[in-house]
Amino acid sequence: MNLNQSNAHNRRLVLASRPKGAPGPENFRMEQTEIPTPANGQVLLRTVFLSLDPYMRGRMSDAPSYAEPVQIGEVMVGGTVNRVVESRLEGFAAGDWVLSYTCGWQDYALSDGTMLVNLGKSPAQPSLALGILGMPGFTAYMGLMDIGAPKQGETLVVASATGPVGATVGQIGKLKGCHVVGVAGGAEKCRFAVEELGFDACIDHYAEDFAAQLAAACPKGIDIYYENVGGKVLDGVLPLLNTSARIPVCGLISQYNATELPAGPDRLGQLMGLILVKRLKVQGFIIFDDYGHRYDEFYQEMSRWYAEGIIKYREQVVDGLEQAPDAFAGMLEGKNFGKLVVRVGNDD
Amino acid sequence: MNLNQSNAHNRRLVLASRPKGAPGPENFRMEQTEIPTPANGQVLLRTVFLSLDPYMRGRMSDAPSYAEPVQIGEVMVGGTVNRVVESRLEGFAAGDWVLSYTCGWQDYALSDGTMLVNLGKSPAQPSLALGILGMPGFTAYMGLMDIGAPKQGETLVVASATGPVGATVGQIGKLKGCHVVGVAGGAEKCRFAVEELGFDACIDHYAEDFAAQLAAACPKGIDIYYENVGGKVLDGVLPLLNTSARIPVCGLISQYNATELPAGPDRLGQLMGLILVKRLKVQGFIIFDDYGHRYDEFYQEMSRWYAEGIIKYREQVVDGLEQAPDAFAGMLEGKNFGKLVVRVGNDD
Repeated sequence: MNLNQSNAHNRRLVLASRPKGAPGPENFRMEQTEIPTPANGQVLLRTVFLSLDPYMRGRMSDAPSYAEPVQIGEVMVGGTVNRVVESRLEGFAAGDWVLSYTCGWQDYALSDGTMLVNLGKSPAQPSLALGILGMPGFTAYMGLMDIGAPKQGETLVVASATGPVGATVGQIGKLKGCHVVGVAGGAEKCRFAVEELGFDACIDHYAEDFAAQLAAACPKGIDIYYENVGGKVLDGVLPLLNTSARIPVCGLISQYNATELPAGPDRLGQLMGLILVKRLKVQGFIIFDDYGHRYDEFYQEMSRWYAEGIIKYREQVVDGLEQAPDAFAGMLEGKNFGKLVVRVGNDD
Repeated sequence: MNLNQSNAHNRRLVLASRPKGAPGPENFRMEQTEIPTPANGQVLLRTVFLSLDPYMRGRMSDAPSYAEPVQIGEVMVGGTVNRVVESRLEGFAAGDWVLSYTCGWQDYALSDGTMLVNLGKSPAQPSLALGILGMPGFTAYMGLMDIGAPKQGETLVVASATGPVGATVGQIGKLKGCHVVGVAGGAEKCRFAVEELGFDACIDHYAEDFAAQLAAACPKGIDIYYENVGGKVLDGVLPLLNTSARIPVCGLISQYNATELPAGPDRLGQLMGLILVKRLKVQGFIIFDDYGHRYDEFYQEMSRWYAEGIIKYREQVVDGLEQAPDAFAGMLEGKNFGKLVVRVGNDD
């Protein structure tokens, strides 16, 4: 496959400007630079897969958040699966597959081993490290298990039901004996959530009577709402919450492109009132900051579930680094179907 | 003292109408009835102290909440300290002091022992069972200790700083090594919180520059905000919250008399965004429902702290059952100073 990746130069996508509202190609700039040479204690990496994830929208903005923004002119951040081209670092050899959190949206990068995981010589499916066995899977697992604390017979609602986080949350919920109701955009995704992933129901958020359909699918109310979207899904969920419901908050993708607060009335106090009278627990988390010490526990369990076919995982691969900006913008609008990954280079 | 309590008839205050906005005397009606006679398995109680607490505002309304509303024409609910007039129930004898949650705003009532605690023949200060050693103290203790989880050197903010919950929260915070900042209405209460209760600072919420004063008193941000008021105190707190801050929610007194939602913009999504990026935990609780099984633990520790003078407690006693409606309405506006109790009858 010709992916325009060369062994003569490095292509990289830098942040050209900060988006106002939805990001577009104009916010990125493709640059060509030399391939760097590793010093002692470094490895040279070549990118095979780049992960695209909603949190990256936050890094494009300089609003206060949990992580430093990408600076204008800097390479966009992101998780990548790479191969080692040349190693002058102990523990890594040419040909090794690695997971990196410092390379970002480019063909080649140096690493001194910081946030670099060796995946071995021939992992069965290297891109899983960006999805079900990586950050999204870990986010789904810990948020649901630790904050959501699912119990047999409870009702669990999760949006982005076919995305890498939502799909995993729902399937773990089924494993734990919950009545699982997904929310997704369009009939095809909803069908997939029910027929392939085993959700009990999945509601199309484009439906005019979305809130009524959600209520009908949750006849016993909602005990856990795994929050990854906000907006109208949250609005539909709030009146259905049961006493002592839990809301792990891992993302709010519907808000990321907003440029101003919505019109009133102001429901902030109303939400606090609901938290009081329903005794809700609403808790945000950032996966590696809060749960990094439990990654091994997750990895062991999820590897087994995936290998045995208990948890299914869908990936959408887009070919070519130059496609990353459009694919990313589309993801924020829900155009992807499954975990979005860019194939930047060939396997070998 | 002549409190108009008779041994010939029972006076009771019933809910005459549901308040729209702030409650007033017109929402209550004083009635006279016969003193009932205990059947086998019952005791007859005479009320000495009636507790007035903010949660009662919720019971006057038929909006959905965690407890059933008082019906029109029913006796208003509330905790009372009573003496046993006549007992046909094992474990209780004439003259015993008791704590009751079923008697409410009246002189006499029967009880079958449900939610009835025997305080013995001669408790040192019987009204403490309605305050520091009862529901408000327990609420302060569990919300702070279990949800707030205070750590040495953290900053704790609590409003109603001279009220029975806020004062206790702040003093426990000091015991745990926190920098404690109170919020109260007026210079006298603020001075009391600092000089008598040992808070590090206390900000007057009537001050024009309240938010700026609060920020100045919390130079390291806020790690725990014990929420009992909502409104402008919450607005001032939100921008100061540190990563991983905890917000136990036990009340929202500033909202109880509101008849409609405030004008926009709608900040509900903004609050969710803050919960996400700051990894906040916001959790509501209803003290006996969530923590009833830990009452003994609280009682032992708080009794010791109070007896040793480590935790101080201020009570405001209003004389006469007929004063209860006005005293209650005043409390919702912050006119009380300390735990508000009505002396309904004499001790003996």
